[in-house]
Amino acid sequence: MSVPMTDSGPWTTSDPTGLHRVLDDRVVLPQAAQHLDARREIWPDEVRIRVETLNLDAASFRQLEGKHSVDGQPDGDAVRGEVLQIVAERGKMQNPVTGSGGMLIGTVDEVGSQSTLGLAVGERVATLVSLSLTPLLIEDGLERWDGRSEQVPADGYAILFGRSIAAKLPDDLSARLSLAVLDVCGAPALTARVIAEYDAPTVAVIGGAGKSGSLSLAAARDAGAARVIGVVPHAPEAGALRNARLADEVVIADARDPVALRDAVAAAGGPADVTVVCVDVPGCEGGAILATAQRGTVIFFSMATSFSAAALGAEGLAADVRMLVGNGYTPGHADCALDLLRRHDGVRQLFERRL
Amino acid sequence: MSVPMTDSGPWTTSDPTGLHRVLDDRVVLPQAAQHLDARREIWPDEVRIRVETLNLDAASFRQLEGKHSVDGQPDGDAVRGEVLQIVAERGKMQNPVTGSGGMLIGTVDEVGSQSTLGLAVGERVATLVSLSLTPLLIEDGLERWDGRSEQVPADGYAILFGRSIAAKLPDDLSARLSLAVLDVCGAPALTARVIAEYDAPTVAVIGGAGKSGSLSLAAARDAGAARVIGVVPHAPEAGALRNARLADEVVIADARDPVALRDAVAAAGGPADVTVVCVDVPGCEGGAILATAQRGTVIFFSMATSFSAAALGAEGLAADVRMLVGNGYTPGHADCALDLLRRHDGVRQLFERRL
Repeated sequence: MSVPMTDSGPWTTSDPTGLHRVLDDRVVLPQAAQHLDARREIWPDEVRIRVETLNLDAASFRQLEGKHSVDGQPDGDAVRGEVLQIVAERGKMQNPVTGSGGMLIGTVDEVGSQSTLGLAVGERVATLVSLSLTPLLIEDGLERWDGRSEQVPADGYAILFGRSIAAKLPDDLSARLSLAVLDVCGAPALTARVIAEYDAPTVAVIGGAGKSGSLSLAAARDAGAARVIGVVPHAPEAGALRNARLADEVVIADARDPVALRDAVAAAGGPADVTVVCVDVPGCEGGAILATAQRGTVIFFSMATSFSAAALGAEGLAADVRMLVGNGYTPGHADCALDLLRRHDGVRQLFERRL
Repeated sequence: MSVPMTDSGPWTTSDPTGLHRVLDDRVVLPQAAQHLDARREIWPDEVRIRVETLNLDAASFRQLEGKHSVDGQPDGDAVRGEVLQIVAERGKMQNPVTGSGGMLIGTVDEVGSQSTLGLAVGERVATLVSLSLTPLLIEDGLERWDGRSEQVPADGYAILFGRSIAAKLPDDLSARLSLAVLDVCGAPALTARVIAEYDAPTVAVIGGAGKSGSLSLAAARDAGAARVIGVVPHAPEAGALRNARLADEVVIADARDPVALRDAVAAAGGPADVTVVCVDVPGCEGGAILATAQRGTVIFFSMATSFSAAALGAEGLAADVRMLVGNGYTPGHADCALDLLRRHDGVRQLFERRL
């Protein structure tokens, strides 16, 4: 598949996975690579995007903010400095600790002659593949960003490969709102698919007032859940979620406390047939497993999930639960999520509260 | 659920999950705990086992051996020293890097009056919950172990909680062979369950000549797979797997090279509807995803799996694949695995080759 070139680089043909832009010595996919080639020129199946805003993944931003805090006060300049350094070194924005990235919005700048993504020059789009595998070059030093929020105004360009995903931004929603929805659009789509495998299941969404959580609650109800339980960490979120009317029951529990989570879900009508984990803090695996009925399913959407904690935790509890790695891609996920926002006022309320 | 005690400790009642033996400040399950209480006295729902052999998890042993190698030569004394130190500090054998443990065999020493595990004093058993959550005390300094193999002769005791799993060792198989089978018995059981959801699927087992791999191949064929592909890293394993006659096709590929794995499985009749990852090396997520058909399933049994690499890798490839965290527990898994070994000479051959 790779053919050595004589002068301008190692690849004469591109690979739809983006392998031709991996600069590592070993053959790895762009997501696993240490360094990507972020050159401006595109291969025939690629698309170049003029970047407008980066949206850092929540787990990544939280890690950066925590690392660069003094006495609990985040140092925005230091966060910005590290983001610039990461992108310059790696040719992509991938947090070296969490492994995660985020997404971006921008305008289509050039479309290769063999691209199959269906994009046209000038269209405003959001990329739905992670920044952790997207070649990126920043040209403005992020001078318009204070380093204190996940949404990063930026000027520069990014590259989409042959096998990639981007969504046109809808006309009826603000770019900020669309980006926030598209960022987590894999969660409601997969939740709906799993719920359809059960007959009128009880569903618990851990982190139900958040972005992926509120969309998952709405998707669960639409997909036929008999009872929908939202779990939140404290009273203000409980109030917001109750006002949104997306859940039959709203309960407060620390998701990192396995007994508290188990008991809270049980008291709300659990255990759950399907438990959806949408909180970006480590240590929620055990509680999610204990909150789930035998032959139930746990879907982990949090990038803070530990594979071994989940695998060994379930075994150690003799828990016959199916555990899914939350795949961010399901066909139709972008339209599905935008549609949920349009149809459920409660979802829109919760999103606008966070913008 | 927890009731403060006045004199002998914080818990008057035990919790079936073993919470009463967690010494951490936060409420965490035993698997996630830093320190367990390995006291000899049992609660009424517990069982104490006199330990005979520890079987370290492959990923854990590999990490320890690598860490304590000089010029590629493992230092067995250093490995033994670190295992002793871990158990003394944590009250359990949990590798701090991999998070994994292993299992043990021993003899039932005492059964609490309220235990529901169905065990009797004097029975020889294997524990099927991970050592990473099993209270353990070593009393012989592991003096009979040279630190150079995963099977560790040991004297000491271990504790099973109310909600736990242990299997009586069968009379017709050696303890060593039974232990090796029971160590990985979750893999064939879950593989069979997933395969039954598809109609005559193509199945690829990455690491097909290994313990969990060979059992998964046998389980796949019994569960109705139309084509079974075994992937191995080199010619000697390919020869062994061909002799075992467990796979329709045996192919050689480095599972860490995503393109090589994709192409090897495709050439053998793939992509696979179900891909089972049984190799304990990091970096196999991308290749497993690329080797799998749209709407297919990847089951990750390797403790070296990275959650974020799997989640973001699938999204980045626009791969509509379901990804399962390999739960080590499925009801009936021990009997199912022992039965596969008895019925498939090829499985027995491959196991005996490794003992």
